[in-house]
Amino acid sequence: MKILSGIQPTGRPHWGNYFGAIRQYIALQDNEQAFYFIADLHALTTIRDAAVLRENSFAAALDLLALGLDPAKATLFIQSEVPEIPELTWLLMTVTQMHLLEKCHAYKDKKEKGLAADAGLFTYPVLMAADIIGYDSQIVPVGVDQVQHVEVTRDLAQRFNNIYRQDVFVLPEYRVLDTTAKVPGLDGEKMSKSYGNTVEIFEEPKKLRKKIMSIKTDSTPVEAPKNPDTCPVFTLYKLFSTQAEQDALAARYREGGMGYGEAKQSLYEKADAWFAPARERRADLASRPDDVHAILSDGAARARSKVRDVLARAQAACGVGPRR
Amino acid sequence: MKILSGIQPTGRPHWGNYFGAIRQYIALQDNEQAFYFIADLHALTTIRDAAVLRENSFAAALDLLALGLDPAKATLFIQSEVPEIPELTWLLMTVTQMHLLEKCHAYKDKKEKGLAADAGLFTYPVLMAADIIGYDSQIVPVGVDQVQHVEVTRDLAQRFNNIYRQDVFVLPEYRVLDTTAKVPGLDGEKMSKSYGNTVEIFEEPKKLRKKIMSIKTDSTPVEAPKNPDTCPVFTLYKLFSTQAEQDALAARYREGGMGYGEAKQSLYEKADAWFAPARERRADLASRPDDVHAILSDGAARARSKVRDVLARAQAACGVGPRR
Repeated sequence: MKILSGIQPTGRPHWGNYFGAIRQYIALQDNEQAFYFIADLHALTTIRDAAVLRENSFAAALDLLALGLDPAKATLFIQSEVPEIPELTWLLMTVTQMHLLEKCHAYKDKKEKGLAADAGLFTYPVLMAADIIGYDSQIVPVGVDQVQHVEVTRDLAQRFNNIYRQDVFVLPEYRVLDTTAKVPGLDGEKMSKSYGNTVEIFEEPKKLRKKIMSIKTDSTPVEAPKNPDTCPVFTLYKLFSTQAEQDALAARYREGGMGYGEAKQSLYEKADAWFAPARERRADLASRPDDVHAILSDGAARARSKVRDVLARAQAACGVGPRR
Repeated sequence: MKILSGIQPTGRPHWGNYFGAIRQYIALQDNEQAFYFIADLHALTTIRDAAVLRENSFAAALDLLALGLDPAKATLFIQSEVPEIPELTWLLMTVTQMHLLEKCHAYKDKKEKGLAADAGLFTYPVLMAADIIGYDSQIVPVGVDQVQHVEVTRDLAQRFNNIYRQDVFVLPEYRVLDTTAKVPGLDGEKMSKSYGNTVEIFEEPKKLRKKIMSIKTDSTPVEAPKNPDTCPVFTLYKLFSTQAEQDALAARYREGGMGYGEAKQSLYEKADAWFAPARERRADLASRPDDVHAILSDGAARARSKVRDVLARAQAACGVGPRR
């Protein structure tokens, strides 16, 4: 199966990103033909500083490689290094019905808030459709909020195929990511950049410990029994530990005599041990940027050789592009 | 000066197209650095048959070359053979305010008629802006109805330059074509494909004569004096004749004794003599399609080497694309 995942170069990823998406994306490389792209053309709708965008795009590549994405198994590349994608985007644009775009969340939400939207936000789903269709992707793993985009992609692919009476494009399916893992933030709410309650994956040990120590807990005294199931520290601990370890810590919560500081220290040790190897790999990769750029160039070349085929089929169907 | 003209591959051009636009476009090659592109990516919003579009695009090239476009002086190419244009289109899309597109004629007219529009029609002005900006065009010769598109292009270029605080794009100026030449159709109304009253530039002599003989005239008897100034035959004759020839024919109208058939015959002879060399050149070019394709390939290569520079500037400004 061909699987495609797009990663927004939005800055430093946090534990919520990791357990909710990144880890699951990377796991796919073992059994599927996986393409991972860093969506810098999409990011242009929000990041308008060249240095920041370049840095974020490169950082996203470092993050994924450090967390285990293996360029020998999967194809990793930066979206804007595949010029065939905007070409395909225009072909799709000419068969995209306005009402499909008008109902898409990102645009609709902004409009309902009375904010001025740019055409980039409005037509974003067409670019996304080209990204998906361009690699003949069969499966697109997505969060629940992205299901709509895959549905729009199917609509566009189907309409193009109907208009030109050929099976030019493969219709992709979505696979909803497992988002049952609860990842509370420092304040106990869902961890999210917009809440400012995040713990970053690649945080240095000292800062990591400080952040974990600041997790909001209730004022139950040290000696009193505590409920692990309502404590964000315990919820986070579960992400990094075995069942036996969880049972042991839960017992200590319930028997009393353990302060939250101690639970936090346990969480810190587990989390630090979990991410330390990735942190080291990331530091190593960051020290040899040319190697990372070579991986990305190679990925773009592989991606292009795939998209070129799809674009050629689409151009032949509608009568544009170089004669072949 | 860099001048850009786009030609829609809509089929067989008529006298109205010739005197209203084509002739004026071609004249520019003598004094300016001119780029002419056949707008097949735009045509996709209306032509949805690959064979028809390919044929029309090639025919448009034949038409222009036959009418005097000189590939040694000017750059002639097919839009879809310059992949950098859709790339540039996306960059511009991210700075295009929705309200600019909502007010553009083509989309507005269709929407007001209650017709469903595709996103291709809606975002058409962004593609057109990329076409213009992509060659650092300084002058865009346009009909009055196209002035708005050049204004939108200026807005987008300016906004991009402002957002990224650099003079990335040249702001183009429009030059309104001289449309004072009156070109009536067979029914005396303005010649237009939508009125079905056209005379085609490359019509074969027999059919040409038949068409001219069908021009609607009044029922003034042969012997009676006639008014040349209200006669479409005379109006058309003026396009192909010298002042002395016009004066002579006008005198014959006024003195009576000449039937409209005779005036039509004079018009036929003039028009046929005018277009015969182009018709022959066109037949010759059509008999060696590989030479024409070579001209178009060469044109696309020249166009690309120009757009590549502009795209590189734009990508550097916003932080996407290959590192350089």
